[in-house]
Amino acid sequence: MDAVTRIERTLTEAVDLAAQRGCPPRLAEAMRYAVFPRGARVRPRLCLAVAAACGDDRSPLADSAAAAIELLHCASLVHDDLPCFDDAATRRGKPSLHVAFGEPLAVLAGDALIVLAFQLLARSGRVAPERLGPVLMAVGDSVGVPHGIVAGQAWECEPSTDLSVYQQEKTGSLFASAALAGALSAGAPAATWQLVGERLGEAYQVADDISDAVASDEALGKPAGQDAAHGRPNAVETFGLGGALRRLERLAAEAAAAVPPCPGQAALQGLIRQEAERLLPKRFTAAAA
Amino acid sequence: MDAVTRIERTLTEAVDLAAQRGCPPRLAEAMRYAVFPRGARVRPRLCLAVAAACGDDRSPLADSAAAAIELLHCASLVHDDLPCFDDAATRRGKPSLHVAFGEPLAVLAGDALIVLAFQLLARSGRVAPERLGPVLMAVGDSVGVPHGIVAGQAWECEPSTDLSVYQQEKTGSLFASAALAGALSAGAPAATWQLVGERLGEAYQVADDISDAVASDEALGKPAGQDAAHGRPNAVETFGLGGALRRLERLAAEAAAAVPPCPGQAALQGLIRQEAERLLPKRFTAAAA
Repeated sequence: MDAVTRIERTLTEAVDLAAQRGCPPRLAEAMRYAVFPRGARVRPRLCLAVAAACGDDRSPLADSAAAAIELLHCASLVHDDLPCFDDAATRRGKPSLHVAFGEPLAVLAGDALIVLAFQLLARSGRVAPERLGPVLMAVGDSVGVPHGIVAGQAWECEPSTDLSVYQQEKTGSLFASAALAGALSAGAPAATWQLVGERLGEAYQVADDISDAVASDEALGKPAGQDAAHGRPNAVETFGLGGALRRLERLAAEAAAAVPPCPGQAALQGLIRQEAERLLPKRFTAAAA
Repeated sequence: MDAVTRIERTLTEAVDLAAQRGCPPRLAEAMRYAVFPRGARVRPRLCLAVAAACGDDRSPLADSAAAAIELLHCASLVHDDLPCFDDAATRRGKPSLHVAFGEPLAVLAGDALIVLAFQLLARSGRVAPERLGPVLMAVGDSVGVPHGIVAGQAWECEPSTDLSVYQQEKTGSLFASAALAGALSAGAPAATWQLVGERLGEAYQVADDISDAVASDEALGKPAGQDAAHGRPNAVETFGLGGALRRLERLAAEAAAAVPPCPGQAALQGLIRQEAERLLPKRFTAAAA
C-alpha cells in the first residue's frame, strides 16, 4: 500500500471515531470538514518516508504517528483561522471552519482533533509498547510548550518575535516531529532525524512565505498577502525574493545531508531533492532571476 | 507524601515545562494562571485514591495520570469561559483567563494545557511501558470524541440535548477516566472503576447545579445562575431542589457500591461517603426539607 493510501485510510478511521453513534453530529461533521478533502499531507508523508527508510517494522505505529501529526496540523489551521487570530474567510479553497460551522464548533473541533491525535496513538501502542512513550513525546513536544506550534503561534501575542524562532516553532517543529516519530516508530535511534525534519520544515515555511507574497488567492485556496496584512514575519520581506529562493534550496540540501546511515538513506535523499524541486516552481525562479 | 502534595508537585513540574527559557513568556504566565492557585482538585484526588486502593506500585505514572486529568479539566474551563461560549468574566474568584490575557492567549493556553497533559504522560511511560497505552486511552477518550468533555460541550451547538448525556460527557467522563486511569496505572484490571468514576462525576455535577441555582457569585468564585442565564440543562430545574439532593445521595451510594474488591476497598468507600457529606452542606439539605 502506498504512503498516501495508508495516510488517508488511517485519517478516515480516526475521524470515523468521531462519527460514531452518540457523538454530537455537527462536531463530527466539523472535524471531517477540517481533515478532508486532503491537503498536501507533507508531514505524514515525511513521517512514513522516514519510517520506510528505517525499516518500518511496526507500520501500525508509524501510520498512527503520521496521521496524529496531520490531525494536529489540521487542528492548528482551524484555530489559527479563528477571528481572534487571522480571521481567515477561506482555507484549502473553501470557507474556513468557523465561517462554515460557527466559532464555538471551530474551537471545539480544533480541541477534539488535538485529542484525537493522542487517542489514535494510544490505540496503536500495543504493537510496540516500549516505543509508544518516545513517539508520544516527540509528537507532544512538537505541538506544546516550550517550543511547539502552539508556542510558535503565541509569539504573535508577544511584543517582539525572532523570525527564525517563530518559523521553527510554527512549522519546523511538526516537521521535526514527523521525521523523528517516523524513525522512533521503526525502532531506530533518534540520531539526526530531528534536524532533517527541521530543515525541511523551514524549507516549506520559506516556500509558503514565497507563495503568500507572490501567488493569488485562487492559486493558494486561501487569502494571499496575509503576512503583510497582519505585519507578520515573512522570509521574502526579510531576504528579498531571490534570497528566499536561495535559502529554500540551501535548506533542502542541508536536510538531505542530515539523513543518517539507514537502510533507505539514498532513496530518502532522492525524495527530498525531488520535493525541493516541486517547491521551487520555474516561474518563481524566473521571476527572481 | 499525601495526595494533595503529590498533585501540586506534579502540576508545578508540568507547568514549569512551559516556563522554560525560550517559551513565549505570556503563554507560560497564562498557563500558570489557569492551573494555580488550586481548585478542589477532586479529579486527581480520585485518581490517586483509586491508585492507592489498587496498590499504587508505579506512583510516577499515577501522578502523571492524575495531573494530566487536572490539566485537561483546567483547559476545558479556559475554553468554556471564552466569549463564544459562556463569556464568563470570573473563574475561581479571579478574572477569567481571556479577560486577564485576551482571547488569543486563552485559546492558546487551553490548547497548550491539553497537549501538556499528554507530554506529561509520555514522560512517565518509561516506569511501566505496557501500562502507558491503556492509561493514555482512558485519558484521551474522556476528553475527545465520541463521548468526552469536548463532545459534551459540543451538545450546546446542537438543536436538542439529553440532560444525562450532556452531564455524563461534560463532567462524568473525566471522573470516570480519573478512576479508571488510577486503577490502570497501578496495573489493576479495569473492572467497575469507570462506573465508580461516572457515578461520582454525576454526583459532583448535581452538586454543581445545586450551587449554581442556590449560591451567590461570591461563594462560588464565578457567576451564579449561569445555567438559567444560558438556558442550559440543570438538575435543580429538572428535578427540583429536593429531588436533586436525593439524586446526589443516591449517586454517591452507587459509586461506593461499585468499588470492586481491592486492597483498599473499605478505605476508599469511606472516603466516598465522606466526600458526599462535604458535597451536601447542611444549609442546602435544610432548605430542601
